[in-house]
Amino acid sequence: MEVTLEALKGLLEHKIGFVERMGLKVLDLSPGHVKLMVPLERNVNHVGGMYAGAMFTLAEIPGGALSLATFDPSKYYPVVKELTIRFLKPAETDLTFEASLAPEEVARLNSDLSSKSKADFVIEGVIKDTSENVVAQTRAVYQVRALERR
Amino acid sequence: MEVTLEALKGLLEHKIGFVERMGLKVLDLSPGHVKLMVPLERNVNHVGGMYAGAMFTLAEIPGGALSLATFDPSKYYPVVKELTIRFLKPAETDLTFEASLAPEEVARLNSDLSSKSKADFVIEGVIKDTSENVVAQTRAVYQVRALERR
Repeated sequence: MEVTLEALKGLLEHKIGFVERMGLKVLDLSPGHVKLMVPLERNVNHVGGMYAGAMFTLAEIPGGALSLATFDPSKYYPVVKELTIRFLKPAETDLTFEASLAPEEVARLNSDLSSKSKADFVIEGVIKDTSENVVAQTRAVYQVRALERR
Repeated sequence: MEVTLEALKGLLEHKIGFVERMGLKVLDLSPGHVKLMVPLERNVNHVGGMYAGAMFTLAEIPGGALSLATFDPSKYYPVVKELTIRFLKPAETDLTFEASLAPEEVARLNSDLSSKSKADFVIEGVIKDTSENVVAQTRAVYQVRALERR
């Protein structure tokens, strides 16, 4: 099975109903890089800003996106093991999150997948508003797993 | 303005569209105690379990709920400052989260609110499935703020 990046964008935006309902958009996706956006509209909290759960999701999906864009989805699937999010400023616009996996990190993960059928990686990032203000910081731990382990 | 606990349940379930769409339910709410439930249906992830963002929300709303049920909502409002969630087991049923604020903690918070117009508190908890398995652990930091500070 070959999954094109265009098909993968569609999967990321529509496969999980929870994610689709909040209107998450994939702005950029390539092996090793992803940029996502969540609109303020539909995700407003009790004080007029972006609800924390939408910000969590904006920062959580990138690990899965990077895994799926980098490791053959017919052989491997990603899960999130842990995520910490620190809210720094009111988030009052659409928000974006950008993350990368360096080539040497991909090489290490491929090596772990060959020997152990699973591999952990960490994504640290920031959530920005449309004025490039950092409104939240996140750190997430993911695991890529071989499908036959399930 | 007086807000009854029944009205507050309605607010928690329906005020934030993001939360309403995932079907979060308030099972129990009293000053100092809250129990919430999120249904698996509508919140399924890419491997058939509960999506991480729904679990985050299940563990995030209790801090707001406890604040609103304990401190006069016409004078104070809550925000979340930080949340860490650790995913321990696959979450394949409806899930619940229960949290409390002890009377002595409420007394400390009231004292801080009187002197500083804001007060921080921590909720540590676990997310359980319908067989009482702990599927995730969380730790969240909230701040109650006086409305006139805004």
